[in-house]
Amino acid sequence: MNSHEMPDIQSSHDARDIAIDQVGIKAIRHPMTLVDGGQESSSVAECQLTVGLPADQKGTHMSRFIALLNEEPLRLSVAGMDEWTQAMVERLEAVSGEAHFSFPYFLAKDAPVSGQAAMMDYDVTLRGHVEHGRARTSLKLVIPVTSLCPCSKEISAYGAHNQRSHITVEADVSDRNLSLHDLITAVEAQGSCPLWGLLKRPDEKYITEYAFDNPKFVEDMVRDVANALEDYPGLNGFSISVENFESIHNHSAWAVINRPAR
Amino acid sequence: MNSHEMPDIQSSHDARDIAIDQVGIKAIRHPMTLVDGGQESSSVAECQLTVGLPADQKGTHMSRFIALLNEEPLRLSVAGMDEWTQAMVERLEAVSGEAHFSFPYFLAKDAPVSGQAAMMDYDVTLRGHVEHGRARTSLKLVIPVTSLCPCSKEISAYGAHNQRSHITVEADVSDRNLSLHDLITAVEAQGSCPLWGLLKRPDEKYITEYAFDNPKFVEDMVRDVANALEDYPGLNGFSISVENFESIHNHSAWAVINRPAR
Amino acid sequence: MNSHEMPDIQSSHDARDIAIDQVGIKAIRHPMTLVDGGQESSSVAECQLTVGLPADQKGTHMSRFIALLNEEPLRLSVAGMDEWTQAMVERLEAVSGEAHFSFPYFLAKDAPVSGQAAMMDYDVTLRGHVEHGRARTSLKLVIPVTSLCPCSKEISAYGAHNQRSHITVEADVSDRNLSLHDLITAVEAQGSCPLWGLLKRPDEKYITEYAFDNPKFVEDMVRDVANALEDYPGLNGFSISVENFESIHNHSAWAVINRPAR
Amino acid sequence: MNSHEMPDIQSSHDARDIAIDQVGIKAIRHPMTLVDGGQESSSVAECQLTVGLPADQKGTHMSRFIALLNEEPLRLSVAGMDEWTQAMVERLEAVSGEAHFSFPYFLAKDAPVSGQAAMMDYDVTLRGHVEHGRARTSLKLVIPVTSLCPCSKEISAYGAHNQRSHITVEADVSDRNLSLHDLITAVEAQGSCPLWGLLKRPDEKYITEYAFDNPKFVEDMVRDVANALEDYPGLNGFSISVENFESIHNHSAWAVINRPAR
Repeated sequence: MNSHEMPDIQSSHDARDIAIDQVGIKAIRHPMTLVDGGQESSSVAECQLTVGLPADQKGTHMSRFIALLNEEPLRLSVAGMDEWTQAMVERLEAVSGEAHFSFPYFLAKDAPVSGQAAMMDYDVTLRGHVEHGRARTSLKLVIPVTSLCPCSKEISAYGAHNQRSHITVEADVSDRNLSLHDLITAVEAQGSCPLWGLLKRPDEKYITEYAFDNPKFVEDMVRDVANALEDYPGLNGFSISVENFESIHNHSAWAVINRPAR
Repeated sequence: MNSHEMPDIQSSHDARDIAIDQVGIKAIRHPMTLVDGGQESSSVAECQLTVGLPADQKGTHMSRFIALLNEEPLRLSVAGMDEWTQAMVERLEAVSGEAHFSFPYFLAKDAPVSGQAAMMDYDVTLRGHVEHGRARTSLKLVIPVTSLCPCSKEISAYGAHNQRSHITVEADVSDRNLSLHDLITAVEAQGSCPLWGLLKRPDEKYITEYAFDNPKFVEDMVRDVANALEDYPGLNGFSISVENFESIHNHSAWAVINRPAR
Repeated sequence: MNSHEMPDIQSSHDARDIAIDQVGIKAIRHPMTLVDGGQESSSVAECQLTVGLPADQKGTHMSRFIALLNEEPLRLSVAGMDEWTQAMVERLEAVSGEAHFSFPYFLAKDAPVSGQAAMMDYDVTLRGHVEHGRARTSLKLVIPVTSLCPCSKEISAYGAHNQRSHITVEADVSDRNLSLHDLITAVEAQGSCPLWGLLKRPDEKYITEYAFDNPKFVEDMVRDVANALEDYPGLNGFSISVENFESIHNHSAWAVINRPAR
Repeated sequence: MNSHEMPDIQSSHDARDIAIDQVGIKAIRHPMTLVDGGQESSSVAECQLTVGLPADQKGTHMSRFIALLNEEPLRLSVAGMDEWTQAMVERLEAVSGEAHFSFPYFLAKDAPVSGQAAMMDYDVTLRGHVEHGRARTSLKLVIPVTSLCPCSKEISAYGAHNQRSHITVEADVSDRNLSLHDLITAVEAQGSCPLWGLLKRPDEKYITEYAFDNPKFVEDMVRDVANALEDYPGLNGFSISVENFESIHNHSAWAVINRPAR
């Protein structure tokens, strides 16, 4: 019995009359190349690929998602998400769909004084959405920074507690030429201090003093990022959250600001 | 210098004129008692407690969340979420707020043939929301079941691949007497078979045949849960997702149906 | 067909002649009560229960582990681990076995200046081992503290980077009256500063200055814990690791000292 | 003040007289290329790099690990681990050290009937160890397979529960030409059935029946892998564990066999 003689249950009629918003595959890893600002970098994506399913169709064609993923080397960019997602929706013979790719993005950063270069990693998710024939792209960034507590600095005779914090930005993209690198740089400037992979002693002195001169509550950071993104070219609406992995507690401080897309 | 002589930076004026949607604490664990249908059970919650912060106020009072959590033993129930959240919002002198508690909920279940009892664990999140003086409660359940593939059964001479699946339900609660136990039971009936902690051989025979007689795609499960919850008393709108941890792949199949609250 | 008429494959003979070191169940959650120093506290354990299997036996009796777990409320203590594990090994008709229970342990701690009390959570694993008729108990603790960098303090005009750190201790227990509470207190004193759940401003000033007066590299902490545990009553050998979730990097600093049991 | 005028606390004398077994960096991600059997593939490694620290030295030089990682593109292979680790130990002016790299390894696999190719991902850790002037390499593989329960098959009128399982192998490497690809293939043959990324219906029929014809308990798989690796060329000792993510329970079955290195 070959494939064409086998019953195709997925394509059969479904009598429940309930459309499915999204159906597909999740938690699949795939090697990829990110293209950003003309630079290429390798990474590994965790992928989530789904389409809408009409009320009268029993199942989707799961293997087509995998076939698409494997046809040619996976190259992702902000500019290419609309096309990728449209191609996926067509391949699945669907009218709507979403493609999410989450991956660590590596940037070579020069230490602030010594200038020594090392990779820093940022978690990025690129998402394509197709609905009613229109495609749009959105993104999610998780950007680690240092935060130093203004209260601790103010009330203490010396020192101030500080810690690693995560700034998470989710936004719709309105300009396909948006640079991830530039956006990350703009956001990480809103912490008490950015992070680097490699720091020599002159760098460590510099950033210790920089953070001390620049104390910020979790509330300050979420507001300063909101300020920085309010008119940031290429974004349309955003959701910002900041989590401080408090060095004086075993829990996090957390703040959120949402601005709906226009 | 005592507390009253120390500068209170959090209470100072903020000139950026940006309100914060949510600010508070996250990722804090606390022992708790769940009350459901008159039954009490112990568990450990991961808590996320936040309030809205006006544009002119620099910071919230983080320690008050912790004080509230520790004042008396934490007792949670669907019925009590509105009050808990309102008390939190008042304590923080805020006008809006959210309280999220995520915990494993243990139910003693009797095996289907032998009747032997053992605990089964389900991940539950109870959430209270206060805004514009109104409180509402919502919940999230993660319910593990077995799913057996209809295609595999149909095309194979014998056998059929099956696997553990997670059914996740998020919904607004419109009846404070909603029973978590009953809702879990209604949802887990929509898999190819429910799970049990303890199964003797007669039970294992029963559930193997039961699942084989009841094959379901991820699409079938999400639709059948939607059907079961469409008019379920005490719920208002829902989002259902089902994830199959495929036994034949190293990735998941996944489906989502959303119904907005009325 | 009832249970006794069903074939019992697990009990059949295995011809491969390969003994199995450990076989059983893993990743099962169960509510529990910890008894330590006469105090009881509720928590939820993740359990791993295994026995050795002789070369000629095809399989173990998985359901007996679950039955044992569910027979009576699970009460755990350092003092009771030997008996619990021996009972498990007997129940499985085995000659060796291990029982591991991992759970958050909550201690009420008073803030250092204000004296306000709040829960702090520590990850604890209690392990029982039975082999050749002898039982022994071991433990693992994960204790979060603050660490403040001596280099950053020394080279900077002001401030010093600090962060949350995890001190992990694994050790054999030689005294069944060992107090977890006392051991945690002895270990957390070796950071730059312990953590608390609730801190008012006078507490925050105190601990900021305390940490600044007490700078420690990851190397200092692992050595100071080794020092503190070298002759700690009730322990026999240890493995200590300290991980600093660096506030100036997106990676951790890490150090390990091992002392074999005598 | 330049770097040479700054105090170098790490290099100062330590009076506690306690050597540190391992100290370095952990949880750092870095892009990499794996070379195996002449084939190159891109991935992202999570790295843990440590050295031993003598009793009289206060601290190690953390930034040197990062510098080493960033000097040239990271190329890893079984054959190259000894040299990589020796170079690291020299760079840190140490006498012992360990380098661990954990990454997803992608293999293109052809579906068993249709022959369609797709990536499958396996978690691999390569480890180099240097001590007393001698280097050795070890590895860890996590290989997902299907397992089908012999008891369920035997006692049921039709069907049999099956699920995804993880086979984890840790072993010392005695031949630097060991092929990861070949070893993975040898191990995954010991499940009830291997996994593939892409399966068409004729493939799904084939593997459903293949698994049904090849039922294995967790005990069977751990023994069959032990058998397969007993005289496997290039390995010296091993530890094998198999975890079944049971489709009929919300917990795992688990088995372990250890063979010490000679």
